[in-house]
Amino acid sequence: MVCGWVNSRRDHGGVVFLDLRDSTGILQIVCKPDLVKDVKEEYVLEIEGRVGERPIKMINPELETGKIELQAEGIKILSKAEPLPFDIKDLKATLPVILDYRPLTLRNPKIRAIFKIEEEIVNSFRNTLKNLGFFEFQAPTIVASATEGGAELFPIRYYKYNAYLAQSPQLYKQILVGVFEKVFTITKAYRAEPSITTRHISEYISLDAEMGFINSWEDLMDTCEIVIKNIFSGLQKNCQKELKIWKTVMPQLSGKIPRIKMRQAQEIIFQRTRRDNRKETDLGPEDEREICEFAKEKYGSELIFITHYPTKKRPFYTYPDPEDENYTLSFDLLCRGLEIVTGSQRIHEYEKLLKSIKKFGLNPKAFQFYLQTFKYGMPPEGGFCIGGERITKQILKLENVREASLFPRDMERIDQRLSLLQSKKKIKKSKK
Amino acid sequence: MVCGWVNSRRDHGGVVFLDLRDSTGILQIVCKPDLVKDVKEEYVLEIEGRVGERPIKMINPELETGKIELQAEGIKILSKAEPLPFDIKDLKATLPVILDYRPLTLRNPKIRAIFKIEEEIVNSFRNTLKNLGFFEFQAPTIVASATEGGAELFPIRYYKYNAYLAQSPQLYKQILVGVFEKVFTITKAYRAEPSITTRHISEYISLDAEMGFINSWEDLMDTCEIVIKNIFSGLQKNCQKELKIWKTVMPQLSGKIPRIKMRQAQEIIFQRTRRDNRKETDLGPEDEREICEFAKEKYGSELIFITHYPTKKRPFYTYPDPEDENYTLSFDLLCRGLEIVTGSQRIHEYEKLLKSIKKFGLNPKAFQFYLQTFKYGMPPEGGFCIGGERITKQILKLENVREASLFPRDMERIDQRLSLLQSKKKIKKSKK
Repeated sequence: MVCGWVNSRRDHGGVVFLDLRDSTGILQIVCKPDLVKDVKEEYVLEIEGRVGERPIKMINPELETGKIELQAEGIKILSKAEPLPFDIKDLKATLPVILDYRPLTLRNPKIRAIFKIEEEIVNSFRNTLKNLGFFEFQAPTIVASATEGGAELFPIRYYKYNAYLAQSPQLYKQILVGVFEKVFTITKAYRAEPSITTRHISEYISLDAEMGFINSWEDLMDTCEIVIKNIFSGLQKNCQKELKIWKTVMPQLSGKIPRIKMRQAQEIIFQRTRRDNRKETDLGPEDEREICEFAKEKYGSELIFITHYPTKKRPFYTYPDPEDENYTLSFDLLCRGLEIVTGSQRIHEYEKLLKSIKKFGLNPKAFQFYLQTFKYGMPPEGGFCIGGERITKQILKLENVREASLFPRDMERIDQRLSLLQSKKKIKKSKK
Repeated sequence: MVCGWVNSRRDHGGVVFLDLRDSTGILQIVCKPDLVKDVKEEYVLEIEGRVGERPIKMINPELETGKIELQAEGIKILSKAEPLPFDIKDLKATLPVILDYRPLTLRNPKIRAIFKIEEEIVNSFRNTLKNLGFFEFQAPTIVASATEGGAELFPIRYYKYNAYLAQSPQLYKQILVGVFEKVFTITKAYRAEPSITTRHISEYISLDAEMGFINSWEDLMDTCEIVIKNIFSGLQKNCQKELKIWKTVMPQLSGKIPRIKMRQAQEIIFQRTRRDNRKETDLGPEDEREICEFAKEKYGSELIFITHYPTKKRPFYTYPDPEDENYTLSFDLLCRGLEIVTGSQRIHEYEKLLKSIKKFGLNPKAFQFYLQTFKYGMPPEGGFCIGGERITKQILKLENVREASLFPRDMERIDQRLSLLQSKKKIKKSKK
C-alpha cells in the first residue's frame, strides 16, 4: 500500500499511468481506467497493489524508482483536488505568482528541494556548535525599545505600552555569554526594509552565535569558518538529490578563507575597475561582487572575509580596533558576491560600553537591563550571525532571497499581496 | 590555566580561597592575598597554577571538583564587577526582583539548571521527530490577519498595513503537511493575555508537530506519547546534575497514558468532589488538578489525555467527532495538574473546512492562502503542540511559568517593568 498525491495522469487506451508523489519521490502506478475514473492531478490516493519490474522500454533512469511500477488493485480517494491554476510540475510562472500560490507551488520538487537544503544548513549550524559546547536558547522577539539604533523597526501595540520586533537577538546572546559562555540561537529577526531588493526580506532566519573567553577576535572568524565548512560538507553528504536537481556545486574553497581589510578591498577594487569608492564607509553591492571576483581569481576562493569596518557604520557594541579607533574588530563574510555573515568582537568593559552608547546618541536608561551583564563581570567575547535565506540563496545561486523563504514577508506581501488583502482599509484611510 | 567568574571569596589570614565558576561548575582556587588584592565576587579571571589534591579535611563531597584545588601562580583580571545588589549564590529575592536582575540571577546554578533542562526538552522533541521522518521548518511570526479567532492578538504596524504576531504556527504547519507530509517547528507564539496568572506569558516556546496520512486521530496521541516519554528519558540521561539540584523525579507513568473523554472527566470530578461542572465546556484549573489526582490514584500516572472537547471551544479547523458533531477529535495532555499539550485531527476536506470557517463567523477571504492547501488535495492529518515553558515548569514543579522563561514577557514586563521604563509616555497619554 502506498499513499500520495497524483503528480500526473496519462491515459493510454486500456491503461492509465499515474505518477504518485510523496515527500520521498515519485512512483509509477499502472491502473485499469475504471479504477481511476474521476482521478485528477493533486488528488490524494491510497493505493493497494503489487510492485513489479517495468517493461525494459519503459525504464526511466532519471527516476530513483525508474525500474519499477505498482500494478494497482484497489484505490481509495483520500481527498479530491480542484483543477490546478497552472502546471505545477513544469513551473513557468513569475516569482510573484509562485508566491501567491505558495501552498501549491511548494509541492514542485525543485522548489521543495530548496527547503530541504535550508533545513540541512540549519542542522549543520546547530550540530557544529553543539559539538563545540555551545548552549542553545530560544531568543525573545518582543523588545521594549529600539535598542540598536532605531531605524527599520516594526512597532507593536503591547497592551498599553509600546514595543518592537527584535532586529536581532544580539543583546540576549551577549547576556547569556555571561551565563553559559558560548551560546547560539536559531531565530527570526525583523527589519522594516522600506524598499524592495533581491537581498532583503522583512522577517528572516538568523543563525546567531556568541562566545566568551576569546583570545583574539580572530577566534570568531575561525569558528565561523568551521561552521560554514561544515554546512558545505553536510549538504554534500545529506542533500545529494536536492543538489542534483539544482545542478549546484558548493562554493569553491582553497584552504583558509582569505581575510582582508575593508580599506584594502576598496583599494583593490579601485585598481581593478578605476571605480573610486575608497572613501565610502561600507562596500556597496557592486563592490561586494567585485571583491569576490578578485578572491576567486587570486585565491581560488568563492568566500572572503572583509574586516575592520568603520566604527560609525557598526553598532555601538562593536569593539574598536586598538590600533585605530576609527575602525572596528569586525568582519563580514562574502560568498559569491553577497554578504552572508556579519560578526565582531564586542565591548565587554562596562565603562567603555556606556561611553559608546552615549556616543551613538542612544539612551543608557534603555539599556539598563543589558548593561547588568557588563556591570557584573564579562569576559572578552564576540560572535556572528548567518542569514539563513541568504546562504541558501548563494549556494543555490537563486536570483532572489524570497525564493529561499518558505513564506516571505516584504513591504508588499504577507503570504498574499497586501494591496489586495487590505484594499478596503487603505481606501478608507486615503479618504480621510 | 582556567577562566571564570569569582563565585565567592574567603579570606583566611595568609591565604585566600576563591570559588571560580564557569558554565561547567566550580573550582576552588588557593591564592596568596597579594595576588587577589582587589578581586571581588563576579570578577572574571584568568588563572594559571597547579592542580593538587585538597587536604583531607577540606574535601567537599557535594562538589564534582571537591577533592582538588588549584594553587594559583598568576592571575589576570579579565573584567571587574561592581558590588552585587544581593547575594546571587543564596538567592532569597522574590520572583519580580529575580526577573529585574535576570542577566545576573541567571548565573545562579540552580536557576541556570532550569534552562539546561529546557534545552534538553527542546532537543528531545526535535530528535524524536527527526528520527520519525518529520521535516523541520522555521515558522513565520508576522501574519496578516487574526486567523484563529481574533482575541488576544498583538497588532503590528507593518509598513502602511495592519499585521499581527502569530498566535501559533498552526496554519503554516498544515500547509507544509501538503508538501512534506510530516513537519515540526520550534517557534515562538504570542498571546496578549490580559491578566497575570502563573500559567501564562505573552511570548512562549511552542513545540509544534503536524502529520499527514494518519489512519486514526489516535495516531496523534500515540506520537505525542512517544515524544513526551523521550523527553523524560532524555532528561534522565543527559541532565542528572540539573535534576539533582532540583531534587526532581520525572512524572510517574505506568504503561500507556490513560485517555478519557472530557465529559467523563467531569463526571468523575463530580463523583469525587460533588463540584458540578458537568455542563461546562472546558476544564478549569481546579478540574485539571482534580482529574490528575484521579489519574495518579487510579492508574499510577501523573499524565492523562483528556479528549473530545466541545466543538465550539476548539478552533475552526478541529475535526468534529463523526459520532457526535458537538464534540471534536481533540485532546489535551495534562501533567501534574496542568495542560502541557493540546492537539487534534484537523478538517482536511475543502468544502467542510470552508463551512466551518463560516460557522465560526470568520471571513473565508482572510483564509484564501491557507485554503489552497485543501482545495488542491490534502490527506487526513492532525498534530499537537507542547508548551515549552509549561512542560519545564511541571517537570521541575516550579510555581510560576515565568521561572521557566529566560526573558519572560507579560502585560507588566519586557525585561524591565514597563511601568518604570515607559512611565513618561504613560503620563503623557493620561493627560490627554
